[in-house]
Amino acid sequence: MAAIDTPVALLGYGTVGAAVDRLLTEQAEDIERATGHRLRVVKALVRDTTKQRPVSVTTDIAEILDDPSILVVAEVMGGLDPAGEYVREALRRGKHVVTANKQLVARHGAELFSAAEQAGVQLRFEASVCGAIPVIKVLRESLVVAHVHRVLGIVNGTTNFLLTEMESGATYVDALADAQARGFAEADPTDDVSGADAAAKIAILATVAFNSRVGIDDVAYRGLEIVDDADVSAARELEMVIRLVGDARLTDGSVEASVSPALVSRHHPLANVAGAFNAVMLQGDAIREVTLEGPGAGGTETASAVIADLVSVIGTMGTGFLQNDAAWRELPLLPAGESRSPFYFRLSVEDRAGTLARVAEELAERGVSVARLVQHPDGDGATLVVVTHDATRGAVDAALDAIAELPQVHARPHALPVIA
Amino acid sequence: MAAIDTPVALLGYGTVGAAVDRLLTEQAEDIERATGHRLRVVKALVRDTTKQRPVSVTTDIAEILDDPSILVVAEVMGGLDPAGEYVREALRRGKHVVTANKQLVARHGAELFSAAEQAGVQLRFEASVCGAIPVIKVLRESLVVAHVHRVLGIVNGTTNFLLTEMESGATYVDALADAQARGFAEADPTDDVSGADAAAKIAILATVAFNSRVGIDDVAYRGLEIVDDADVSAARELEMVIRLVGDARLTDGSVEASVSPALVSRHHPLANVAGAFNAVMLQGDAIREVTLEGPGAGGTETASAVIADLVSVIGTMGTGFLQNDAAWRELPLLPAGESRSPFYFRLSVEDRAGTLARVAEELAERGVSVARLVQHPDGDGATLVVVTHDATRGAVDAALDAIAELPQVHARPHALPVIA
Repeated sequence: MAAIDTPVALLGYGTVGAAVDRLLTEQAEDIERATGHRLRVVKALVRDTTKQRPVSVTTDIAEILDDPSILVVAEVMGGLDPAGEYVREALRRGKHVVTANKQLVARHGAELFSAAEQAGVQLRFEASVCGAIPVIKVLRESLVVAHVHRVLGIVNGTTNFLLTEMESGATYVDALADAQARGFAEADPTDDVSGADAAAKIAILATVAFNSRVGIDDVAYRGLEIVDDADVSAARELEMVIRLVGDARLTDGSVEASVSPALVSRHHPLANVAGAFNAVMLQGDAIREVTLEGPGAGGTETASAVIADLVSVIGTMGTGFLQNDAAWRELPLLPAGESRSPFYFRLSVEDRAGTLARVAEELAERGVSVARLVQHPDGDGATLVVVTHDATRGAVDAALDAIAELPQVHARPHALPVIA
Repeated sequence: MAAIDTPVALLGYGTVGAAVDRLLTEQAEDIERATGHRLRVVKALVRDTTKQRPVSVTTDIAEILDDPSILVVAEVMGGLDPAGEYVREALRRGKHVVTANKQLVARHGAELFSAAEQAGVQLRFEASVCGAIPVIKVLRESLVVAHVHRVLGIVNGTTNFLLTEMESGATYVDALADAQARGFAEADPTDDVSGADAAAKIAILATVAFNSRVGIDDVAYRGLEIVDDADVSAARELEMVIRLVGDARLTDGSVEASVSPALVSRHHPLANVAGAFNAVMLQGDAIREVTLEGPGAGGTETASAVIADLVSVIGTMGTGFLQNDAAWRELPLLPAGESRSPFYFRLSVEDRAGTLARVAEELAERGVSVARLVQHPDGDGATLVVVTHDATRGAVDAALDAIAELPQVHARPHALPVIA
């Protein structure tokens, strides 16, 4: 049986775009066997046409949008502008779109899915979250009746690399230099280390998991700025590790989503995710928990996810199922202070004797009870490491505000959630 | 838009069948939103119609096969006979089939896929392997261009529970009694502890991953009979744990598949799989490695996978893609002795002095080089723990046969593969 010729256009031809083109060519037979289609890149939108490339290129988006033979467009250029306008227009013209662009999906998902629905085409975005890990497909197609109520994820490889290096004794500065040398971190690593990159991914995952749109600005995020070497050591002593964890929960009909450095028990699946890998744990009624782990970035890894989406578009073309906007309802967001968790914090205090009692008092006054406490002498003062029982973020923060006012306390500590 | 009514029949109404029925009813709206279809169990085949059940039951398969309104059949009765004949006949009559039956898929896959293809219907089998973990969908639909060349899996929850209990100090006998009390092990646990259950699953996974049929009899398996407490302790000393690992590899165009207790480095993702959970690591060119972990058994967990398949059938109905027989080529099997790996073995010897030299000599003669060796005094003899560098199973077995002949050696040791 002859394969159906299926022309594809790429928006962008950087690392990911080139890898998509190469894999589609090299593995054309595998794809044909799986789908009956021969996926063929017929045109790539680029900024600079003078570079030698193994594909027909253009700087004019109209050459792609106006070509009715192009059925599917893969957006691998990144950025919001002009990628957003191109994707919107491609959908309007009845082309299926596959995108690797997390900012675009997280910020303009509602509008883009609506455009796709009106045109009767699909918008797929597996590659926008966690590289080669097929978490979107699993959430949308495998866990349809699982009632997923919590998504816990290590969704930023750069910070995970930094934290696992710090665990092995490296300083933050050295670990960052190493990550930059290996290509795991950008020259300006702000987007990664601040938690902003992870927040965009958690917004997408929460939207798909809970079927209610979680915007990028709905995700409270903190990054590695609130972690230092002493926290890494304290975590070790507690038989935990520090990971930058995205946590999205559906509780009593309210949604919450956050990104924060967290203390993770050594026995938790997320604790063993090392280096630049990503992992996502999905907890649901029918499935208990399913964890997916793998490379969260990389040219061929991301390209593999883009191609999986291309193949899935073809495999479901005309049935129109499973790929409507995941967000069909509007759930309220849980106010930030009401988020419940056990929390960890670390205090430097001047005078041991009276301080512990005062700290305990401030916590107790706000209903925060202490699960574990370790006190170490530290020069002429002491370091207190505290892990609370389940408490609201608001109560813990209020207690820490009061504790910071105590004359014996050096600085306002940060409360990190604990995942057991 | 009104949902399309989609009548489903169940073959079997045990724990899984009842859970499928319940989840389809309870979550009809979620499914309708995802697919546009209302999946409705209209008939269940049972052995005993006197039990009260919330669905119309029959003991006559013809009532299902002859009903042209039934589009999809879910086989959740288990066993080869008569399940095989019913599935074959349902496919021939043009009904899509979803099955949770690993023995059936592992033993009669070729014939059943051929029947499905001839009738132009789908045969899906996610629930036949690893319960709620969507490894079949990920392999077939997400990793199309990943060139998966190795599948490593903990695919039997019972043995994983036993091994993690033994790690915590329990004896095999106590761990088994505990597993039986908790419902993790059958009264007769032979199928699980011998590795036979895992072998069926690895046969299915290897077939799908490498696109070449691996029969259940092509999988060499050993079970917990070759592990004792001393191995568990020795593994701990080597910073490893013992897991029953299914290992399927594609090397230079040859396929090998085995199940064996193996020593797994503590840093390996499979080492951290505890209790009755399952995990599968997929290694491929484009993706490096993706690991999926979750509950490998359980009524609702398995039902969740059955329903995912039902939904996927509907989502791709008419496109005919992605669900042909995964095995489109015939690759040779690697002869068992040629399988390469580092190996571990443990020797009880009478006399320390001369023995080590003789053991080393027998290994060296067959080109097996030693990576680590630990010697402990043990009464008037010693225990030798050896980890080799990469070697063939044949060379290691030949060396151990010779070593077993040495007068100082008490028994023929077992060689367990090592996964670093």
